Amino acid sequence: MPSAYILTIACPDRIGIVATVSTFLAVQQCNIIDSAQFGDPDTRRFFLRIHFEMPDDGPGRPELERLFAGVAATFDMQWELHDAGRKSRLMIMVSRFGHCLNDLLFRCSTGTLQAEITAIVSNHADFERIAEMHGIPFHHLPVTKDTKREQEAAVAQVIEDTRSDVVVLARYMQVLSAEFCSRYPGRIINIHHSFLPSFKGASPYHQAYARGVKLIGATAHYVTENLDEGPIIEQEVSRVDHAHLPDALVNVGRDVESLVLSRAVRYHVEHRVLLNGHRTVVFR
Amino acid sequence: MPSAYILTIACPDRIGIVATVSTFLAVQQCNIIDSAQFGDPDTRRFFLRIHFEMPDDGPGRPELERLFAGVAATFDMQWELHDAGRKSRLMIMVSRFGHCLNDLLFRCSTGTLQAEITAIVSNHADFERIAEMHGIPFHHLPVTKDTKREQEAAVAQVIEDTRSDVVVLARYMQVLSAEFCSRYPGRIINIHHSFLPSFKGASPYHQAYARGVKLIGATAHYVTENLDEGPIIEQEVSRVDHAHLPDALVNVGRDVESLVLSRAVRYHVEHRVLLNGHRTVVFR
Amino acid sequence: MPSAYILTIACPDRIGIVATVSTFLAVQQCNIIDSAQFGDPDTRRFFLRIHFEMPDDGPGRPELERLFAGVAATFDMQWELHDAGRKSRLMIMVSRFGHCLNDLLFRCSTGTLQAEITAIVSNHADFERIAEMHGIPFHHLPVTKDTKREQEAAVAQVIEDTRSDVVVLARYMQVLSAEFCSRYPGRIINIHHSFLPSFKGASPYHQAYARGVKLIGATAHYVTENLDEGPIIEQEVSRVDHAHLPDALVNVGRDVESLVLSRAVRYHVEHRVLLNGHRTVVFR
Amino acid sequence: MPSAYILTIACPDRIGIVATVSTFLAVQQCNIIDSAQFGDPDTRRFFLRIHFEMPDDGPGRPELERLFAGVAATFDMQWELHDAGRKSRLMIMVSRFGHCLNDLLFRCSTGTLQAEITAIVSNHADFERIAEMHGIPFHHLPVTKDTKREQEAAVAQVIEDTRSDVVVLARYMQVLSAEFCSRYPGRIINIHHSFLPSFKGASPYHQAYARGVKLIGATAHYVTENLDEGPIIEQEVSRVDHAHLPDALVNVGRDVESLVLSRAVRYHVEHRVLLNGHRTVVFR
Repeated sequence: MPSAYILTIACPDRIGIVATVSTFLAVQQCNIIDSAQFGDPDTRRFFLRIHFEMPDDGPGRPELERLFAGVAATFDMQWELHDAGRKSRLMIMVSRFGHCLNDLLFRCSTGTLQAEITAIVSNHADFERIAEMHGIPFHHLPVTKDTKREQEAAVAQVIEDTRSDVVVLARYMQVLSAEFCSRYPGRIINIHHSFLPSFKGASPYHQAYARGVKLIGATAHYVTENLDEGPIIEQEVSRVDHAHLPDALVNVGRDVESLVLSRAVRYHVEHRVLLNGHRTVVFR
Repeated sequence: MPSAYILTIACPDRIGIVATVSTFLAVQQCNIIDSAQFGDPDTRRFFLRIHFEMPDDGPGRPELERLFAGVAATFDMQWELHDAGRKSRLMIMVSRFGHCLNDLLFRCSTGTLQAEITAIVSNHADFERIAEMHGIPFHHLPVTKDTKREQEAAVAQVIEDTRSDVVVLARYMQVLSAEFCSRYPGRIINIHHSFLPSFKGASPYHQAYARGVKLIGATAHYVTENLDEGPIIEQEVSRVDHAHLPDALVNVGRDVESLVLSRAVRYHVEHRVLLNGHRTVVFR
Repeated sequence: MPSAYILTIACPDRIGIVATVSTFLAVQQCNIIDSAQFGDPDTRRFFLRIHFEMPDDGPGRPELERLFAGVAATFDMQWELHDAGRKSRLMIMVSRFGHCLNDLLFRCSTGTLQAEITAIVSNHADFERIAEMHGIPFHHLPVTKDTKREQEAAVAQVIEDTRSDVVVLARYMQVLSAEFCSRYPGRIINIHHSFLPSFKGASPYHQAYARGVKLIGATAHYVTENLDEGPIIEQEVSRVDHAHLPDALVNVGRDVESLVLSRAVRYHVEHRVLLNGHRTVVFR
Repeated sequence: MPSAYILTIACPDRIGIVATVSTFLAVQQCNIIDSAQFGDPDTRRFFLRIHFEMPDDGPGRPELERLFAGVAATFDMQWELHDAGRKSRLMIMVSRFGHCLNDLLFRCSTGTLQAEITAIVSNHADFERIAEMHGIPFHHLPVTKDTKREQEAAVAQVIEDTRSDVVVLARYMQVLSAEFCSRYPGRIINIHHSFLPSFKGASPYHQAYARGVKLIGATAHYVTENLDEGPIIEQEVSRVDHAHLPDALVNVGRDVESLVLSRAVRYHVEHRVLLNGHRTVVFR
């Protein structure tokens, strides 16, 4: 039985990268299943994602990594090698709206999302029973202005204890401190309930209603120190009309939010998202 | 052969409006083909659009209007009665991008857009021959900072001379003065090449590229004194990805712009758009 | 506090229907919140849905019905009056794919779907625990060719015992007998996992793969004696490409199926769907 | 100034194809701009499209082709090398609906479609003047049952005389003979005004109306001897409802048809479409 891996690379663009990497893999008897690439003409950065299989009698992962390190050094590559069969460890943070949580729980349980939920963290107790039903540890970590530092320390402890690869803010309605955010670059995914950069900040559906837009949207992005400014992973919209009051917008928005967030998380755990400055390359 | 009319009404909401209007029409032997309504719970305004037929031996339009004026007064109605068979007189303003112009010309020629193009006005001469091919008067009215006032006066003269009902800014790249805009409330439709309120102002596709959005959009709106702030009539988006450089965004955007503008113009000339403060009610 | 009702009407088209109904309601001090209508020029049938409020000191529902019966008789109306605040009683049938079930359970629990799930019926035992977690009675009714008649009798008994208004086939993979279907006209909603009329019958995703389509879809329809031929309530599609093998199509399809089915059920329980021969009128 | 080329390859799948091709290009000092690949696990066929630049002091096209022929033979490749800057020569056939024709003319004129229209062929004279306005030769080739063979011979003559690479049936309402179709495999693109395989044959919009579908669609496909069965290149849909009579469906459909056909033609002239049996691989 062959093992499957995903190799992601970012490096300065120049002639021969694909040739070198694909030849390296061919020599190691690795078979490319899927490959996608992008050369950014602005930044002259090159991005590559290769999904490949290594045969049973291949070199094995440690030896492959050792050998590839030499190639990578030549091209000044940032690279990661992921076991394609391994599930990402995903911690979910949520406040009182459970639609994204429910959606992620279901997708993980059916395997359409290759992830294992390590913990559910909330500043409210509402979803304790749901976590229990799914056999997932629940951490009730309430927060006030005065306890933000302590609460975030407790959150960080859960991330560490559970060895979580990624944190998903599934409608977590607290603003995380810049300090906290900067500790996990490219590892925290948030769903913002508007089509960014429209309607940043609080109550985007009320803002959308006031402006009279004809489509509402949702945006999944990596969290950075600058609120609602992180690299966008995925966006989607849904049609509304004059008869949609803010409450109706909220209801329509739930479906879009769930869809967008689940897509973004899937892209992330399948190692399809590469950071390109404050933008993303997404190999869908 | 019956004649068809479209009656639009806006008035304070209260019990009995539909009953009164529909009874009035039934008494006059008019048959309702289509009717749509909306009561805004915020503003307590009520909006109604009725498409109806009057038989040959009906009262005729002047008498109908005379009779209805009494009803309207009782309910403090703003109302308009339109001959459903009459084509709106539409003046197009354009600069150097012709995709929206071409689209509108074609839709008018095939009758899918119930409008007659009265004139094409441009600050460039590029489309003179196209206008000529379609037998439409072309007015080349170049403009500089210093001649803006005179140029706008000339534009206003064309509107008047051609008795145009509505002006469509089909990628007209000059900012009209507040004075000009305020002369034609609800009668100038602009296409902005972004999903407003994102990316107001100049070069929205470059702004979209810089932000790394995953969908680009277009917005058709009525022009008011406040640039890019007018009531939105229609919006649409199209998916893009990291490989779309600004030029590619511009190309993808053309199709969305043409589509959105043609829909907005169709809604307008079919009297489906009612102003509700700085928002619109659109009875699609 | 006023009570809200939804009145749906289907009758031969003629002048004065809206006038009569709206005047009737105004006289009873009822305030129209929303109204939609459609006159089918082919069949000359007229369809009307009115959402209205009756004040506390109004005539009350029994008296309103008694009075309206006279109006209805005059116009040969089929009509129904529904309490807008009452939740429809919904029985779900499911086999082994749980995405639509999970979606409906969540929407009912949050109130975005105004329905109460009376029972979950399945020919498999897979979802017994999920039903239990939600406190909903679960009926495991396995079926073979030889026991179809008895099994359907048992299903009918559950419908009766639970006084269910509507049955939702949320990926129930057994073909119901014509006899069973004909007992519940307009009361059984099925989700078919293709864009009907394409790919009727079994394994639509495999059929879609074989044909090389670029979009896959789902269709929610009322169940009639003719398999996959019932009146369509809602459809939606999702983009796929050559790299989607049948298993990937199944995964993409899940989201479309859940969305389409939940929309169709919502339209139904909000009394927005009227039958027009083998088609539907849907007042969205 | 480097020259850009597009290399397309189809061959049996095995280890080392990408390595070999990319190394070959690197050795020739060619820089890969874009590359996409697909290995079909069903047929074990491998598909590759590489967009690359050759420097001024590179080997030149003839030498590159000579050298690559050796590589290709080793892997049993079907391959084509296209000059990325060359415009495809496109002949349009049309009957009486001009929306797709107008759309293609405009896109070619603005350069968003990299194609040169060599001739417009029609069985009607309606668009003679439009062809003239664009300076494109127009061939009025009427056809009856009895003259089909002669007319198709005349059409073939135009294709030959104009050295057209591809023929676009832009709502050409005559069925071409199997004999004619088989002469141009993968070179005739048709727009069918339904979401195939739904509503094959005549009057798809009337069929769609009769079935009461909630979305209508259009399908662009290569023409084969089997009517409406050719490999699908692109599809799209648009939402409709019960109020859309067949004429309204036709109007809504025009926009979808134009969009789908223009996308398919663009994919084709950019050499993004590879045939995979009776399906297509489309590297968008």
